[in-house]
Amino acid sequence: MELPLRAPDDDTVDMKITHCGICGSDIHTQDSGWGETDYPCVTGHEITGICTAVGKNVKHIKVGDRIGVGAQSGSCLECKECLNGEENLCQGRKTGTYNSRWPNGDKAFGGYADKWRGHQRFVFKVPDNMTNEVAATFFCAGVTTYSPLKRYGVTKGSKVGVIGLGGLGHYAIQWAKAMGAHVVTISRSDKKLQDATALGSHEYINASNPDELKAHTGTFTHIICTAYSKEFDWPTYFKLMDTNSYFIMVALPEAPLNGIPAMLLAARQISLVGSMIGSPSMIEDMLQFAAEHDVKPWISKYPMKQCNEAVQAFRDGKPRYRIVLENE
Amino acid sequence: MELPLRAPDDDTVDMKITHCGICGSDIHTQDSGWGETDYPCVTGHEITGICTAVGKNVKHIKVGDRIGVGAQSGSCLECKECLNGEENLCQGRKTGTYNSRWPNGDKAFGGYADKWRGHQRFVFKVPDNMTNEVAATFFCAGVTTYSPLKRYGVTKGSKVGVIGLGGLGHYAIQWAKAMGAHVVTISRSDKKLQDATALGSHEYINASNPDELKAHTGTFTHIICTAYSKEFDWPTYFKLMDTNSYFIMVALPEAPLNGIPAMLLAARQISLVGSMIGSPSMIEDMLQFAAEHDVKPWISKYPMKQCNEAVQAFRDGKPRYRIVLENE
Repeated sequence: MELPLRAPDDDTVDMKITHCGICGSDIHTQDSGWGETDYPCVTGHEITGICTAVGKNVKHIKVGDRIGVGAQSGSCLECKECLNGEENLCQGRKTGTYNSRWPNGDKAFGGYADKWRGHQRFVFKVPDNMTNEVAATFFCAGVTTYSPLKRYGVTKGSKVGVIGLGGLGHYAIQWAKAMGAHVVTISRSDKKLQDATALGSHEYINASNPDELKAHTGTFTHIICTAYSKEFDWPTYFKLMDTNSYFIMVALPEAPLNGIPAMLLAARQISLVGSMIGSPSMIEDMLQFAAEHDVKPWISKYPMKQCNEAVQAFRDGKPRYRIVLENE
Repeated sequence: MELPLRAPDDDTVDMKITHCGICGSDIHTQDSGWGETDYPCVTGHEITGICTAVGKNVKHIKVGDRIGVGAQSGSCLECKECLNGEENLCQGRKTGTYNSRWPNGDKAFGGYADKWRGHQRFVFKVPDNMTNEVAATFFCAGVTTYSPLKRYGVTKGSKVGVIGLGGLGHYAIQWAKAMGAHVVTISRSDKKLQDATALGSHEYINASNPDELKAHTGTFTHIICTAYSKEFDWPTYFKLMDTNSYFIMVALPEAPLNGIPAMLLAARQISLVGSMIGSPSMIEDMLQFAAEHDVKPWISKYPMKQCNEAVQAFRDGKPRYRIVLENE
């Protein structure tokens, strides 16, 4: 389908898309899982490509640069959050990379496409030592996990549990390890043990075995939850947590969170925290950290034209651990 | 009923009880609301009195001192939390002031009584400028609200919402104001407007009026929740919260927390935090802060012998805002 790009202005950057990762948010949005989607909608917000044009205010990007954009394409740039470098928390008018509108009413379209146009503030240069196909998924999966682990102080001496080994989880393991933490992958079966170890996880818990869980009672300084279902057993995980610890929720389930034990929240002084992608400065910081610590996604590629097959593969839980669409 | 005090040792302090506050926890425990209570049980953990004997290790308290004890009477004193001055989070053996056992198996009995005996670490001198009847409720209601407001950085420039004006809420308003915050009381009717103002609240929201709520959208740096029911509408309150804000849960409902919107938790990067009374050092800090800032509970007194009537009054929601039992 042919769809119009937003109107250009002095701050826009044009991109010929080379790659786009497939994120769980794409699927939620395709399904109107977070509220009715504004169709037609082009999903995809882990986008890399080549810059083909820039508005006259754009200084940090030039035509020909390899560039990327994540889940956010615009913000008001005037609220206290924007002025404070937390554009991802903008309380004014935010523009998502898809299923969203620019201030002029134009629709914002994502990366399952050949072209993209958006605001310079949310466009980043891909580091020289990173290919576009490797870089793409950092812009959502990467920063979504990097940002809270960094914000809540993961460091040497931390013990970080990663619930779920998927697109987010496989980044979380690598980040936490690179930050110096002892990393434990928590999964519902033994199937991913080998991959977890290869990604740098020091230990592995098969959560369907209560004894394996019990051995870690009261020890995690951080748990990052990347996989959530209605049956999520909060008390089981809260019991694993150390006092004054952080339970970081990066899964964004369509249904509300139920069954949280107030008593354990209090008795261990747990902080249950949400996190929203990452700010532009956090994205810059992450790209540099990734380059320094050799953090890399595990990806499988599909031609862009086969995006429907790729989405089906995502729905079937096949990615090990991220699918990246590629234009010819 | 006559019940035996625990065996004395070199660290025990004996108290002739003068006063004891009635806390919501007493009622939960009387009703086995947090699990089956170990009857017979003497509730009451906001206790003040006069020291009548001390073990030979006790240096900071002497016979004749006016003293107080809160919800905790013992801890292992060896785990990392205890060694770190966070005895309230002890992961070893904790002894509650009631419905609990000392390490030797003796039962711990609370303050609806004439005598108490416990470990020196959890006994505090009542400040000279505070009477025992005024001091009693600081030891649970006071520190339960003081501790998280202090820990999560309430200060000048903060905007603190206090949900529920009761025993905890009436302290929270005073603490937050004394810490320099702009304080807003959030209640389900207009009934407590006058009291809230008298306690120092700058604004008042009748939460049954959606327009009053709406005017505060996205503005609270902290909300402290002292009143919770199954119908608690999380999205309504989360919408009031600023980015990177703290929702402090000090109500301890018997049922798990349900209906928490993951999307708002993420989009505003809210921290939902639990808090467990306060450590001995936090209690000392609070008593000094209260003395300096003239924070005082509003109490109504009942003779200790009428504790049943007093409990009934509590159940009927009559306290304005804390009931204190008094021995003759």
